[in-house]
Amino acid sequence: MQHFTTVKDVSDPKKLVEKALSVKKTPFAWKHLGENKTIGLIFFNSSLRTRLSTQKAAQNLGMNVIVMNIGTEGWKLEFEDGAVMNVDKAEHIKDAAAVMGAYVDILGIRAFAELTDREADYREEVISAFQAYAGVPIISLESATLHPLQSLADWITIQEYQQKPRPKVVLTWAPHPRALPQAVGNSFVEWMNQADVDLVVTHPEGYELAPEIMQGVAVEYDQNKAFAGADFIYAKNWSAYNDYGKILSQDADWTVSANKMALTNDARFMHCLPVRRNVIVDDAVIDSPNSLVIPQAANRVVSAQTVIMELLQHSIK
Amino acid sequence: MQHFTTVKDVSDPKKLVEKALSVKKTPFAWKHLGENKTIGLIFFNSSLRTRLSTQKAAQNLGMNVIVMNIGTEGWKLEFEDGAVMNVDKAEHIKDAAAVMGAYVDILGIRAFAELTDREADYREEVISAFQAYAGVPIISLESATLHPLQSLADWITIQEYQQKPRPKVVLTWAPHPRALPQAVGNSFVEWMNQADVDLVVTHPEGYELAPEIMQGVAVEYDQNKAFAGADFIYAKNWSAYNDYGKILSQDADWTVSANKMALTNDARFMHCLPVRRNVIVDDAVIDSPNSLVIPQAANRVVSAQTVIMELLQHSIK
Amino acid sequence: MQHFTTVKDVSDPKKLVEKALSVKKTPFAWKHLGENKTIGLIFFNSSLRTRLSTQKAAQNLGMNVIVMNIGTEGWKLEFEDGAVMNVDKAEHIKDAAAVMGAYVDILGIRAFAELTDREADYREEVISAFQAYAGVPIISLESATLHPLQSLADWITIQEYQQKPRPKVVLTWAPHPRALPQAVGNSFVEWMNQADVDLVVTHPEGYELAPEIMQGVAVEYDQNKAFAGADFIYAKNWSAYNDYGKILSQDADWTVSANKMALTNDARFMHCLPVRRNVIVDDAVIDSPNSLVIPQAANRVVSAQTVIMELLQHSIK
Repeated sequence: MQHFTTVKDVSDPKKLVEKALSVKKTPFAWKHLGENKTIGLIFFNSSLRTRLSTQKAAQNLGMNVIVMNIGTEGWKLEFEDGAVMNVDKAEHIKDAAAVMGAYVDILGIRAFAELTDREADYREEVISAFQAYAGVPIISLESATLHPLQSLADWITIQEYQQKPRPKVVLTWAPHPRALPQAVGNSFVEWMNQADVDLVVTHPEGYELAPEIMQGVAVEYDQNKAFAGADFIYAKNWSAYNDYGKILSQDADWTVSANKMALTNDARFMHCLPVRRNVIVDDAVIDSPNSLVIPQAANRVVSAQTVIMELLQHSIK
Repeated sequence: MQHFTTVKDVSDPKKLVEKALSVKKTPFAWKHLGENKTIGLIFFNSSLRTRLSTQKAAQNLGMNVIVMNIGTEGWKLEFEDGAVMNVDKAEHIKDAAAVMGAYVDILGIRAFAELTDREADYREEVISAFQAYAGVPIISLESATLHPLQSLADWITIQEYQQKPRPKVVLTWAPHPRALPQAVGNSFVEWMNQADVDLVVTHPEGYELAPEIMQGVAVEYDQNKAFAGADFIYAKNWSAYNDYGKILSQDADWTVSANKMALTNDARFMHCLPVRRNVIVDDAVIDSPNSLVIPQAANRVVSAQTVIMELLQHSIK
Repeated sequence: MQHFTTVKDVSDPKKLVEKALSVKKTPFAWKHLGENKTIGLIFFNSSLRTRLSTQKAAQNLGMNVIVMNIGTEGWKLEFEDGAVMNVDKAEHIKDAAAVMGAYVDILGIRAFAELTDREADYREEVISAFQAYAGVPIISLESATLHPLQSLADWITIQEYQQKPRPKVVLTWAPHPRALPQAVGNSFVEWMNQADVDLVVTHPEGYELAPEIMQGVAVEYDQNKAFAGADFIYAKNWSAYNDYGKILSQDADWTVSANKMALTNDARFMHCLPVRRNVIVDDAVIDSPNSLVIPQAANRVVSAQTVIMELLQHSIK
């Protein structure tokens, strides 16, 4: 594994999940691996879980951690090749990435979609530039279109709580007042496609995810039908892919309610957080014993530590 | 001690001060206590002393430290139970606190009073929510109505500098151009009430502190009379409790001047800082050899380290 | 060395460069030096390289690092002696510096020129106040008029890449859309004056640097003549010193181009970064094999580590 930005970077995702479960048992057993190593966590956007869990994960491995909010603590970066930089951008990504890579052994990057230009977002301009220029392994802390540390934590959680060999896992769109990226949904599908689960994606018409992600994945436009017999309900909002970045529906009927959960096979409820309560999911569901949102968030430390450990063991001299 | 948010959390405050004085002598003698432990410091408001001293204290104990400015680096939190979160708040405190608690062993929280709704401030909404939902010990880094780490540092300082068994300690209101919380004043009274001191509080009429705090405490409206024979003058501004959050006076006659100090028993001058010079206190006083403001601020490391150590020894598995 | 704010603080700059080259070989050989020591890095302005490289340097030495953005995380400081602080400044530098000094063993300070009042900037108000009041060694992380950590890194880089005993080093002004401080230019001249190099400074008329800095230094107003036979081209923009803080020219003919570089003795190209590409320097130059900008930036860790190590060894009890 050279970088960690998509499931495609991982040669054997199932093995990575197995590794994660063993890392979770003895988190401090590999503190020597990170000795004299530094991870830089660069945030172009806000973060709570990712910020805290990735720091914790790196510290569990004995690494030094340097955190930087590039928007407020640094300056605007230029991404266009050959630009005459006489306006507002103070530094080219080529130079900034190379410099950051010179100071640390691993770089984590968070850079959300802007949701105005689909081509640009799906080109993954920011994280690709870091991969091209930093000269060190790059970990996605959520990029424009993917959130692999979240998906790995999701998979770990499902593995821990599944009651049968091939559970039915339903990713359901749910309403939200703001336009959100597709990253968590895309990424969950990408990873679940590698797992031994029956994956169904349900959403109102018009909310289809990117075709390259959804290839071969079951879609069910009727949420009630999708929920029938489900073992895991994973709720998430995203804005439209086709009518890019648009909110097409705020239909409260898609909110995950106790009535909807009653259609399932006593399913566990999952969400990556932060979650809009009583919009995405009713209190009655997220506060029920079937809710996994906190263990799922706790597994963010495990997924980050596993990925960093993998890079320390195999990708860094 | 399960949390540290008020003197009431401490079974034996005098013993805690004794412990602090011994911690101060050999600050690095307990580095093993914090091994593989992490403290998260969450700031809803600005901070200099608390930010730096608490980090230093935790590092003295060998802990990892994660600092987060939740206002600028995270997002707005919802505190209302059952809220339909379809406006501006992205995450409920229930979820945010539980997640933060899943990543760290101790949480420090700074959340000031808003000074608009007295009931809300005195309910201590933010810090109580963290106590309820985080699942780990909570340290107040100054809450809406109390600042116990400051008060403990104040007590340590008084103990170090007192020249007689039962010194006269005067808390004096002083003018300030902005409306400030009552936290430092409240907390100082709360802690000094447990110490072997003669405590007098002096302020203009209308600036009475909360009655539950002031029960049994001597109030003197004439600052000159209060200063007579004092061994310690502790200056601090606060806005009104009764006419909640209002500035009722900016009377420069309440500024602590050399003339006022001449009325005392060669008293030491104290203030928690930051201080408005020549408004709260004249340069001649704060720059005099009788000023304790810097040793007092330095003791913030001692008070924080003592509290964290107590939690590491007795409250964390 | 008591502080590190100018080359004048260093008794033997050449010896410091030699030390740096040996530090670079075994960066982790002195981790015991920083045990139980803390460095505070205080930023009044944005920073990328300095922020990351100084953290990395201190961690290489086993120190704890505390970073603070005083603008956004703290409050406005008063610098005027005797001020009646009843307006917007919440704390006097006297108190803030003394407190910070009480919490850490070394303080790094970044505070840029405001470019409105030359006297004030050249008095170095901020960094001088920290030197006066903090009671611990101060490291400049770029002050109003000097940037010594950068200049030391520049010297190290020149020493590593020079092909002959006394290379010709040219500092060339280059255009920029915004008014920038003179700190990097001043500081480079100050340090190069101590090195075995032939230093030439070239810029349009009106862009003369401070006379006290330029004493005895060769100035050449014709950039082409200056470049002739040069071994190192160091590009940097600055605003006018005489017509203080003004932009007098944005003449694109001063941009460092491949044609200009062809006039040199196959010179290496240097810049402190961040750099405006195709304004300060053309892509063809900065992306050429002769560009040293990344190794130069990487040497920021080496210069910071050397300076911190020097202070740990000789200036701190």
